[in-house]
Amino acid sequence: MTAMPAVGEFDFINWICTQQPRSQRVPVPAGDDMAVLTWQADDLLLVGVDQVLDGVHFNSAIHSPRAIGRKVMNRKLSDCAAMACLPAAAVATVVFHQGTSLEYAKELYLGLREAADAFDCPIVGGDTASWTGKLVVTATVLGRSAGVPPITRAGAKPGDGIYVTGPLGGSILGRHMTFTPRIHEARKLAAACPITAMIDLSDGLSRDLRHICDQSHVGAIISAADLPIHPDAVELSGRSGRTPLEHALHDGEDHELLFTTPAQPPFGARIGQITADQSILLELDGKRTPLAVGGWEHKL
Amino acid sequence: MTAMPAVGEFDFINWICTQQPRSQRVPVPAGDDMAVLTWQADDLLLVGVDQVLDGVHFNSAIHSPRAIGRKVMNRKLSDCAAMACLPAAAVATVVFHQGTSLEYAKELYLGLREAADAFDCPIVGGDTASWTGKLVVTATVLGRSAGVPPITRAGAKPGDGIYVTGPLGGSILGRHMTFTPRIHEARKLAAACPITAMIDLSDGLSRDLRHICDQSHVGAIISAADLPIHPDAVELSGRSGRTPLEHALHDGEDHELLFTTPAQPPFGARIGQITADQSILLELDGKRTPLAVGGWEHKL
Repeated sequence: MTAMPAVGEFDFINWICTQQPRSQRVPVPAGDDMAVLTWQADDLLLVGVDQVLDGVHFNSAIHSPRAIGRKVMNRKLSDCAAMACLPAAAVATVVFHQGTSLEYAKELYLGLREAADAFDCPIVGGDTASWTGKLVVTATVLGRSAGVPPITRAGAKPGDGIYVTGPLGGSILGRHMTFTPRIHEARKLAAACPITAMIDLSDGLSRDLRHICDQSHVGAIISAADLPIHPDAVELSGRSGRTPLEHALHDGEDHELLFTTPAQPPFGARIGQITADQSILLELDGKRTPLAVGGWEHKL
Repeated sequence: MTAMPAVGEFDFINWICTQQPRSQRVPVPAGDDMAVLTWQADDLLLVGVDQVLDGVHFNSAIHSPRAIGRKVMNRKLSDCAAMACLPAAAVATVVFHQGTSLEYAKELYLGLREAADAFDCPIVGGDTASWTGKLVVTATVLGRSAGVPPITRAGAKPGDGIYVTGPLGGSILGRHMTFTPRIHEARKLAAACPITAMIDLSDGLSRDLRHICDQSHVGAIISAADLPIHPDAVELSGRSGRTPLEHALHDGEDHELLFTTPAQPPFGARIGQITADQSILLELDGKRTPLAVGGWEHKL
């Protein structure tokens, strides 16, 4: 808007440009108004965006910039897993707190890169700004279907088994910063058997299962005895006064996959079954009770 | 992460889902982990993201949520213009200040939509959160080449004329919130003559021209007498103590196109010429002096 000293943002952007790998998928060098990608004719394009905020999704006083960068990218890559697509490219934004060092900015970028590189996903563009407020980072990821029709939340059928790819609960003790997106697992599952619905567990099992049931117009019975409970849920239970089961049912940010299939999948723990009536029940000690939503929701 | 009352974010998202138009380009309904798009085999894919911050790019005490939504979307659509691509789809994020009303959130979304709809660009996904900090909005736009190879900043050649699509300066008086992305103009220019380099004027002519010169490895001479100066630059000059010319040269957020071509374009004001040596000069009253960068840069 008005003149400001020519230091800061462009130094960071110029450094980023030196970090960008060239590839056949990215025919125009980084640093133009938009990134340019070639696209395979038979690939559906998937796109989504996620964000993390200092004090909400991480704490910059505790978590390193590299861990923060990794987290936001991995959150979105986990959504690629939920649709069984392969990441194709990403763009990111960062709002820095004013006075942030170039070194910190670089570390944050390297965290984004580390997560993206693990799934061959070039970061092809972005935007940076700064203010007196706290750190905000977003990641937009483009995915490609690559031979697997996207798996939505809308296809679960009565009789389908309900499965999770790993133990749940207590991610706040640390795993919410360090999880691995289940992209390879999703592709293997989709290749092995018909997956009728899938979602990644970001908001907690009780809420995310409801997304599947709502969009598939079905209900579900979850068997408490079959739910794989993470040791972190047990540890957290000792402090929270809630049971490990409650943590496994309601904590968010596990980023395991929750999926339904009429077949026997090659891996995953079976935790229940899809039903025709639209109630969601928890079976515990032989009794079935409605499973209330207890997961994370941002208030406006 | 832990349980919170089930009000807020999902009400907003559910409302957004009712607002989403269905189209052939978007075969999966909104509300899944990622949006799904079909893609034309011969289209290059362009992607970029932009963000606006309360107190930096707008002032929520003055500007309406609808104007704020429009601005961030139009900023990114202006980058589509700079590459001469057509918008294909968008995703957006919003961080609300805690306690924001659903009505305010809807108005902001409607602003994003208004800007996107004007260029037939469906908003196919996004993410919302809230915190005690200020409002942050991002927009990611996907563009498609649609028969026009993307115009980069890197192709300007000595002897090319330098043009702008409209008068410059003083956008802070209001136009920075209300500009129209020059997408139609960019497509017409690209169809009419060889455009060797193009950029949208977001950071100020002196800085954005340097981006073209740096990436094209050329220099430029700008003729002060030929620069179209916006009446806002004159008005602002009366308060700022800087000349209207200075405002036209250095103010940001005009979002007109700056382009170079060896041909005679069908419209645009010729303001100078690309040169072989890499200096950027301003010709004023028969004298040539180096044109210093005076545009906007965020500091880290």
